[in-house]
Amino acid sequence: MLVQSVRRAAKILQELASAGPRMGVTELAERIGVAKPTMHALLRTLEADGLVEQDPETGKYLLGPGLLRLGNAYLETQELRGRSLTWADALAARTREAVWVAILTGDRVLVVHHAFRPEGAVQILEVGASIPWSTCALGKAIVSFAPAAEAERLLKGELPVLTGASITDRRKLRAQLEQIRRVGCAFENQESALGDAGIAAPVFDRAGRVVGAMGIVGPVERLLAEPAREEHAIAVREVARNLSRDLGAPRNPSQRSA
Amino acid sequence: MLVQSVRRAAKILQELASAGPRMGVTELAERIGVAKPTMHALLRTLEADGLVEQDPETGKYLLGPGLLRLGNAYLETQELRGRSLTWADALAARTREAVWVAILTGDRVLVVHHAFRPEGAVQILEVGASIPWSTCALGKAIVSFAPAAEAERLLKGELPVLTGASITDRRKLRAQLEQIRRVGCAFENQESALGDAGIAAPVFDRAGRVVGAMGIVGPVERLLAEPAREEHAIAVREVARNLSRDLGAPRNPSQRSA
Repeated sequence: MLVQSVRRAAKILQELASAGPRMGVTELAERIGVAKPTMHALLRTLEADGLVEQDPETGKYLLGPGLLRLGNAYLETQELRGRSLTWADALAARTREAVWVAILTGDRVLVVHHAFRPEGAVQILEVGASIPWSTCALGKAIVSFAPAAEAERLLKGELPVLTGASITDRRKLRAQLEQIRRVGCAFENQESALGDAGIAAPVFDRAGRVVGAMGIVGPVERLLAEPAREEHAIAVREVARNLSRDLGAPRNPSQRSA
Repeated sequence: MLVQSVRRAAKILQELASAGPRMGVTELAERIGVAKPTMHALLRTLEADGLVEQDPETGKYLLGPGLLRLGNAYLETQELRGRSLTWADALAARTREAVWVAILTGDRVLVVHHAFRPEGAVQILEVGASIPWSTCALGKAIVSFAPAAEAERLLKGELPVLTGASITDRRKLRAQLEQIRRVGCAFENQESALGDAGIAAPVFDRAGRVVGAMGIVGPVERLLAEPAREEHAIAVREVARNLSRDLGAPRNPSQRSA
């Protein structure tokens, strides 16, 4: 049994994160479906821990700094991220591209580490960014090696369209996942953003479970033109395998669990 | 009136963030002071929103990926951070040092933006890091210009000792704050970490309230030796003032509010 008021508090945070940065008590009460006095009490409780804060000018509520501290604490305790730091640098140096490490949460991948492209211009850190699994190499790499029931559930779920190249044909996506299982490497060709490509490989833990993926992202011209494409794929697969071994994975974890 | 179960849920997150990355139900129940079935229900509710997750091997709980998404959403809605990006780059280029932008939350400053040192080696992103206000230039810059009652409360609170140079003499700290108000710039000389120094200036919003601080951090030899020290202080003050104007601050916001 879930605790109703905690559920509501979490929903308030999700609303402020996705629907709008600033909302008044009345608007929030309507969205969550509670009376205004209840919403007041919830907001004041969240405010006491810095999880929301009130704009002194407008009286509206927005997300609070306590969330940044908690998000940072999450990253610090994330074993995949901790172990991936040096491997990500190694992959960025070898491919001269930006490297992302991600986990699957719900039906999206969440970037938990980002090593910048070695000789790039100004780059924006993408840690914390989340992308629909079906539109990126990282997501496809993870789902290919996820337990069959989980993969099936995700395949039957919503397949968002971010560009004209986003895959919405389930049969095509299923074939791609099978191909990824055979070659150990996933590709994205402008499926989440025009002009961008990705190459990613799964990462496994000591129980042989897929815990995330590591890959490179960059302009389609640089990533997917041969012979770069094949060299990149080999590098991504090798470094992801080293990271898995570092996490205690067995030598051949890719025997998919049921 | 605060909502007890939401308060408890927030405490669970704080415990996992500060006391230990993984805790069992029994340990958490003891720390929060609730019965085990209550703790179970709270944890399952937090898990439903990805705010905690359970380690499949040990059954213990740890912080969940939902917090990273929320922390990222907080950063995206943070006006100070958003406006500071280009000014921080400008200050980093001018001083050739790393730049931090921070806000005050409770009795600590929280780093909301970090522009890397232009020609540095590998640098770790410090966004999300928090530091006791009294041990860093950023904190002293903010508190100097905070409302008098707030500054007084912080001066009377705990003054942590991080190094032998951390200031714990309230009279000395008070004198520093007055000096900072006169010159518009705060200094740290190895008060939070041996070998490190900082120079920071306050940032104001359109109502003339101090909303944070911007400054440079780096080795004490590079930052505090003359003539670099004075040049750095001028640069920090000028760029922080530009950032304040960008946030809509009046030309002379430093008239402290009561």
